[in-house]
Amino acid sequence: MKDTIPSISTGPLPASRKTYLPGAQHEIRVPMREISVSNEAPLMLYDSSGAYTDPDVKISIEQGLPEVRGGWLQARGEIEQYPGRPVTEADNGFATGDRLTPAFPISRNPLRAVGDRAVTQLAYARAGIITPEMEFVAIRENEGRRAAAPRDGEAFGAELPDLVTPEFVRAEIAAGRAIIPANINHRELEPMIIGRNFKVKINANIGNSAVTSSMEHEVEKMVWAIRWGADTVMDLSTGRNIHNIRDWIIRNAPVPIGTVPLYQALEKVGGVAEDLTWEVFRETLIEQAEQGVDYFTIHAGVRLHMVPMTAKRVTGIVSRGGSIMAKWCLHHHRESFLYEHFEEICDICRRYDVSFSLGDGLRPGSIADANDEAQFAELRTVGELTKIAWAKDCQVMIEGPGHVPMHKIKANMDEQLKHCHEAPFYTLGPLTTDIAPGYDHITSAIGAAMIGWFGTAMLCYVTPKEHLGLPDRDDVKTGVITYKLAAHAADLAKGHPGAQRRDDALSRARFEFRWEDQFNLGLDPDLAREMHDETLPKDAHKVAHFCSMCGPKFCSMKISHDIRAAAEKHEGMERMAAKFREGGALYVPAEAVEDAEQ
Amino acid sequence: MKDTIPSISTGPLPASRKTYLPGAQHEIRVPMREISVSNEAPLMLYDSSGAYTDPDVKISIEQGLPEVRGGWLQARGEIEQYPGRPVTEADNGFATGDRLTPAFPISRNPLRAVGDRAVTQLAYARAGIITPEMEFVAIRENEGRRAAAPRDGEAFGAELPDLVTPEFVRAEIAAGRAIIPANINHRELEPMIIGRNFKVKINANIGNSAVTSSMEHEVEKMVWAIRWGADTVMDLSTGRNIHNIRDWIIRNAPVPIGTVPLYQALEKVGGVAEDLTWEVFRETLIEQAEQGVDYFTIHAGVRLHMVPMTAKRVTGIVSRGGSIMAKWCLHHHRESFLYEHFEEICDICRRYDVSFSLGDGLRPGSIADANDEAQFAELRTVGELTKIAWAKDCQVMIEGPGHVPMHKIKANMDEQLKHCHEAPFYTLGPLTTDIAPGYDHITSAIGAAMIGWFGTAMLCYVTPKEHLGLPDRDDVKTGVITYKLAAHAADLAKGHPGAQRRDDALSRARFEFRWEDQFNLGLDPDLAREMHDETLPKDAHKVAHFCSMCGPKFCSMKISHDIRAAAEKHEGMERMAAKFREGGALYVPAEAVEDAEQ
Repeated sequence: MKDTIPSISTGPLPASRKTYLPGAQHEIRVPMREISVSNEAPLMLYDSSGAYTDPDVKISIEQGLPEVRGGWLQARGEIEQYPGRPVTEADNGFATGDRLTPAFPISRNPLRAVGDRAVTQLAYARAGIITPEMEFVAIRENEGRRAAAPRDGEAFGAELPDLVTPEFVRAEIAAGRAIIPANINHRELEPMIIGRNFKVKINANIGNSAVTSSMEHEVEKMVWAIRWGADTVMDLSTGRNIHNIRDWIIRNAPVPIGTVPLYQALEKVGGVAEDLTWEVFRETLIEQAEQGVDYFTIHAGVRLHMVPMTAKRVTGIVSRGGSIMAKWCLHHHRESFLYEHFEEICDICRRYDVSFSLGDGLRPGSIADANDEAQFAELRTVGELTKIAWAKDCQVMIEGPGHVPMHKIKANMDEQLKHCHEAPFYTLGPLTTDIAPGYDHITSAIGAAMIGWFGTAMLCYVTPKEHLGLPDRDDVKTGVITYKLAAHAADLAKGHPGAQRRDDALSRARFEFRWEDQFNLGLDPDLAREMHDETLPKDAHKVAHFCSMCGPKFCSMKISHDIRAAAEKHEGMERMAAKFREGGALYVPAEAVEDAEQ
Repeated sequence: MKDTIPSISTGPLPASRKTYLPGAQHEIRVPMREISVSNEAPLMLYDSSGAYTDPDVKISIEQGLPEVRGGWLQARGEIEQYPGRPVTEADNGFATGDRLTPAFPISRNPLRAVGDRAVTQLAYARAGIITPEMEFVAIRENEGRRAAAPRDGEAFGAELPDLVTPEFVRAEIAAGRAIIPANINHRELEPMIIGRNFKVKINANIGNSAVTSSMEHEVEKMVWAIRWGADTVMDLSTGRNIHNIRDWIIRNAPVPIGTVPLYQALEKVGGVAEDLTWEVFRETLIEQAEQGVDYFTIHAGVRLHMVPMTAKRVTGIVSRGGSIMAKWCLHHHRESFLYEHFEEICDICRRYDVSFSLGDGLRPGSIADANDEAQFAELRTVGELTKIAWAKDCQVMIEGPGHVPMHKIKANMDEQLKHCHEAPFYTLGPLTTDIAPGYDHITSAIGAAMIGWFGTAMLCYVTPKEHLGLPDRDDVKTGVITYKLAAHAADLAKGHPGAQRRDDALSRARFEFRWEDQFNLGLDPDLAREMHDETLPKDAHKVAHFCSMCGPKFCSMKISHDIRAAAEKHEGMERMAAKFREGGALYVPAEAVEDAEQ
């Protein structure tokens, strides 16, 4: 089945232009988005969308993105190029002929560390080295600010500096509190940082589907997700063409790409969990590390003795990785090969700087199962594995639930901090109720905003189709924007020093009836404009000093302009009242308001 | 402009039937919704949808709903019927001829208390009387339960009994901690209770618009909102036909109807705030009380000296009622007539049992303005007014913000409890960030769920069109369901004794791949089914033991069934492992799973 080949979404968002900030220590260009605002300075924002929103860059998915990190990596001198593992038919799920997605047209030999060196950001951070990646993310996090904006949050132990310095980044990585997922084979990457003393990030999941398997489709899914703000993308593809499609995605991805290698390993053994072996898994790790996958979800925390703990659950094991491993453990009646070979897994990851996302294979799938014995037993094991990974200089983050009612969310964060030694937390939602299929982006945004506030570093999005079907383009956008607003609400509540700038700019625009600014400063300018057009379609209404809710006859914000103007002139209440008696109309003409603002 | 006359939405929700529970003390029939579930007992739920979902009731909006409370009111013997105030042209915004919406066809004389008696639920509660309304809401709150289900929430001082008794309702009302908004002229009402020791409720706003002014349209807006779960409806109409349309709505409303009388009073003086007088306002109160409005938003907390406190705000005064009163106070340089005549307002309300919703005219309209001096000054005044209203035996709830970042939400609840003496709190959202126009149902659902958990008794919904335009039918549904899930998340977190029943029933259905049950038990069965159909349209897939996310080849929930089955048979781990080795397939046939369940 062939369907229309989509074009890749390019071009800036409304009123936005791409700008690049230079490094002081390294030759880097850090991309930023600048939104122009009438009567105010432009607002500079974090920009995850890559070169796709830069009209000066020619996009060709056959070429891939420019290798911005190429020079940085060579400069380290601890990396060698080598022929790499040959691609096998099994890598692509035995797709052949017409059913085989073409390989990415440019082939190059992979990089790896020389000998048993660790070339991870953690190794460099511990050695006191500030890499270009570290300076890049420091500049990125500051969003062009030179000072903190007003802040008054409750950070629950997070320590957000007024300005992020490259040294602060280094120290946070060295402490294990943050990671920069950046495989040395992902040279197209614009580095980003995940840690609770930085902006809260979001991840979007994509995956191939049986009916649409063109490379353009798969690349466009990723581009679409980052256009709206996804900070990382997980490729959860299964089945045919998995290797080749992943190549197309990574070569065109400016954001870190995460995978669950177990899915591909399972395909290689024909979908039979008990046939999985350490050797097949190991091979898959190397295959994906050579391609440039930035982080691996590894379900090494699911151990044999934990499986019976799930027997009384309402929804059992809901993680695919978790259930694959549970089945394997039961069948062989032995400890998981992921757990037993974890040090060897680390040895692979340190040579490529693949970060760990230690999976929560026993996460609760319902309110009834939240915070149970199985979930916390796994969390403690994952905490032990974190120490092993750190001893190998590997970067680690920890995956979290799932379905959790509001009153049990804080305990998840507290337990994670305690047992996982402050390694960054990366949660799915959590969903705060089970009763709203079709609205689980919202049931989970509630939990996500809260756990982000409490200290979770990255939030894995949930789309409206969760539990029901495969998300389409609109669902992905809805999921990403819902999670952007949840992450931002968390930043505000934590007291992130720059977060409120955008709220304030938008609210000023709202108060002054600058409709275009209000749309452009929002997370989804297109939808906001479309909704405004539905009621007041005319262009003239975009400068109207009223909105459709109250109409031109009476608008609550008008009076406030009068009050403010009077107060600024230090008029007493008596005089203000007198002035109003002289005949201040409720509907103030536009010019009068503009005068008052000056 | 005439557009298509809509039909009123009637008929039960999928797999649901209306059932009525009898009273023990009074002759009442309390409506419930029973969802049938395969292999399980039906789930009985609270039902706000009125007779519209009962196929045995013939609906005719020209007749209005049956006067279920008629007999109850007469039995009290303190109520007289009288000719009532004649309807004037001003009441309908001077609409005449073709532009005049016809009056509701059945006219009847209004009721009021004899002499200066108080006929409020508060007066009866204080006198130790359990009214039919009180028994009605007690039965309703229990949802057919005879005992508490498992509960483990954090209630922040709320005290939710295992079962609600009529005496508990009476005591809560007598203490001022709960209200039953129930104007004696709203005889069609199915009473409901608002208080923090009961289920969290939601309100939906409706209002006429210039282009659609048929009675059917306006009634259908209300019916549509309650079909999806709105517990009360506020009619925020302005302009022409406001009186007649309100009559149509109330005569067809099984839920309490709230209004902001100031809007109509302003229309009567041609939209000029400074021309408002106590006399015009008083007249409007009586007009609406005679029609049967159940609660009035009164912005009596906005006082002259508070107005300058808003001068430095980013978004000034954003409440329409607040800005009308601020303008009036400034113009006349005197105290608000609402504040000065508050006792007389109480004297009117006690004769009809109109409850107060003391308005937050100075609520913050942006993150920057949250929890400021103006907001809390008004809250303290509103607390004083609460005591005055209580002294007059009037029922009171308190309106709250607005726009509040997460870390400032708890303070709103704490201050409200402290200054307003535990009168029920009724909040708009709050929105937890300003940056997502088009998604403010979600930015606010985050705040609503949290403040509901902390103790807010009723949440006023926000639709996706907030700040942008007038909500259409889809927006109203999205807003209502978003707020139902937020209110439910709050109930779960508070440890409401019955809340988790629905989550558990849905999760069991999910785990057992009972797709139809999963749809039917959710808040929006239609959307859930539609989304499932998009990926797996065939009817056969509705009993499929897999979903489109993982497909039939591998499904994480399968293994859990095997584990559970083994555990139930008390098999040791050795035997379980042996059994798996004998060849348990990952994809268990449907029959095997059903066997395991028995």
